[in-house]
Amino acid sequence: MNFKNRVERSFNKQGLMDLLGARLSQVEPGYCEIELLYREGLLQQHGFFHGGGVAAIVDSAGGYAALSLFEPDEEVLTVEFKVNCLAPAEGEKLIAKGEVVRLGKTLTVTKGEVIAIHRDKETLCALMQQTVIRVARKDDLAG
Amino acid sequence: MNFKNRVERSFNKQGLMDLLGARLSQVEPGYCEIELLYREGLLQQHGFFHGGGVAAIVDSAGGYAALSLFEPDEEVLTVEFKVNCLAPAEGEKLIAKGEVVRLGKTLTVTKGEVIAIHRDKETLCALMQQTVIRVARKDDLAG
Amino acid sequence: MNFKNRVERSFNKQGLMDLLGARLSQVEPGYCEIELLYREGLLQQHGFFHGGGVAAIVDSAGGYAALSLFEPDEEVLTVEFKVNCLAPAEGEKLIAKGEVVRLGKTLTVTKGEVIAIHRDKETLCALMQQTVIRVARKDDLAG
Amino acid sequence: MNFKNRVERSFNKQGLMDLLGARLSQVEPGYCEIELLYREGLLQQHGFFHGGGVAAIVDSAGGYAALSLFEPDEEVLTVEFKVNCLAPAEGEKLIAKGEVVRLGKTLTVTKGEVIAIHRDKETLCALMQQTVIRVARKDDLAG
Repeated sequence: MNFKNRVERSFNKQGLMDLLGARLSQVEPGYCEIELLYREGLLQQHGFFHGGGVAAIVDSAGGYAALSLFEPDEEVLTVEFKVNCLAPAEGEKLIAKGEVVRLGKTLTVTKGEVIAIHRDKETLCALMQQTVIRVARKDDLAG
Repeated sequence: MNFKNRVERSFNKQGLMDLLGARLSQVEPGYCEIELLYREGLLQQHGFFHGGGVAAIVDSAGGYAALSLFEPDEEVLTVEFKVNCLAPAEGEKLIAKGEVVRLGKTLTVTKGEVIAIHRDKETLCALMQQTVIRVARKDDLAG
Repeated sequence: MNFKNRVERSFNKQGLMDLLGARLSQVEPGYCEIELLYREGLLQQHGFFHGGGVAAIVDSAGGYAALSLFEPDEEVLTVEFKVNCLAPAEGEKLIAKGEVVRLGKTLTVTKGEVIAIHRDKETLCALMQQTVIRVARKDDLAG
Repeated sequence: MNFKNRVERSFNKQGLMDLLGARLSQVEPGYCEIELLYREGLLQQHGFFHGGGVAAIVDSAGGYAALSLFEPDEEVLTVEFKVNCLAPAEGEKLIAKGEVVRLGKTLTVTKGEVIAIHRDKETLCALMQQTVIRVARKDDLAG
């Protein structure tokens, strides 16, 4: 099974991505994009996309960017991530982009960003830095 | 309107909290708890609560802990937050706890944690550190 | 060799702690304090302690809090840390306090804070959240 | 006074940069580089550059990248930063690079990295994400 299949298979098992309506729109070695379309259920009190949804897709994009470079019998878990909110996440669509910065034997570091698209105008609305860990598929996931 | 009403009113306007099924379970001055009950739509690929849902409720708990101390005509926006995933978020219920560490004129810093409850056993599954900003209710929120 | 000796031995090999004039003032299982006395060489452009010195001692305090719980043949390396600057680090002395939140087989998470002491008044001036990793003493440290 | 002069003037007032032997090697609008040459006083217990020194120069590089875009009567203070250590900081020289990602009226977000140079080979050894705040030069700096 190639890297795209492995990422797609994992993505499709995530109930939260389905609940949010997130879509895996691009997977390359060390890179992943996830999109979220505007829905009332994704908003916060000011009518913008909620930071929790923004965080969920950029965390996943970073994790899948890493998974695309792992061995077939490995999975990925988030160790930690940090998100800066740069602008209101306002628009018809969000695109989260995750990219591997350093692939390690144990830990992998990624960076990510989220773009909001509003009437064809793109705004960078979030910046992320993340650490993920490789785990064997049958491992105790408590690490 | 007192601080509890203001926090509840803001919480109830958040579509994402409703979509996730999150519940505001406690609000005190400088402190807030948000709960999430187990549902398939909240899981990741290993059957635990997805980190995005964990992040969403602890980000909100920190923000509302801050809002509870703000003036009635002010609102809260997340500047940034960082989450460490300490253990799989496995169980019947998650409780996110947010607490103000330093209340500032412009910026407020909070800390948070998420507890997973599984058959009456509590596990600390996430630790958060967050910066939020006060905004006047009518302000341009792009700050 | 007990945990205090191991922490002290490691601390004393750190040239930077010596250059800054930092002092290991307390070590308990899972806890460590490091102090820094006022010197012109530690300041920033406004006359307060520089954030770099603040970060250096709180990063070390967190790492040594973890090391105090490791096996004798293990060492500690910082994976990442995040510091919030809460108030100007002004005073005669800084005390950095590091504490283990979750001890893991591979990764350990700590939290920390820095207190500035100015004419007997204590001010919380920094808050930290950190991930460290265990390494065998002879390991390739590149992890 | 132009942006380079303002950054240099501020840098030269920082006792810590002098103590560490750090050098401001490049300043462009929204960009700054700071170098650190190998010295025993900058090391940790394994003989690599100490994370505290790495953090100090990349925090400063991010802050000065921001200051280069501020008005002449404004100064910069670090709100928070997060550093991932990617590889041991081993070599003859470190170069910290800071760059503005989003310039705001109140808050500015930067990203940074630190490169270690060892026998002409460059290694990315740290990645940073930072929030800084503008302050009027005479302001109460406690924000």
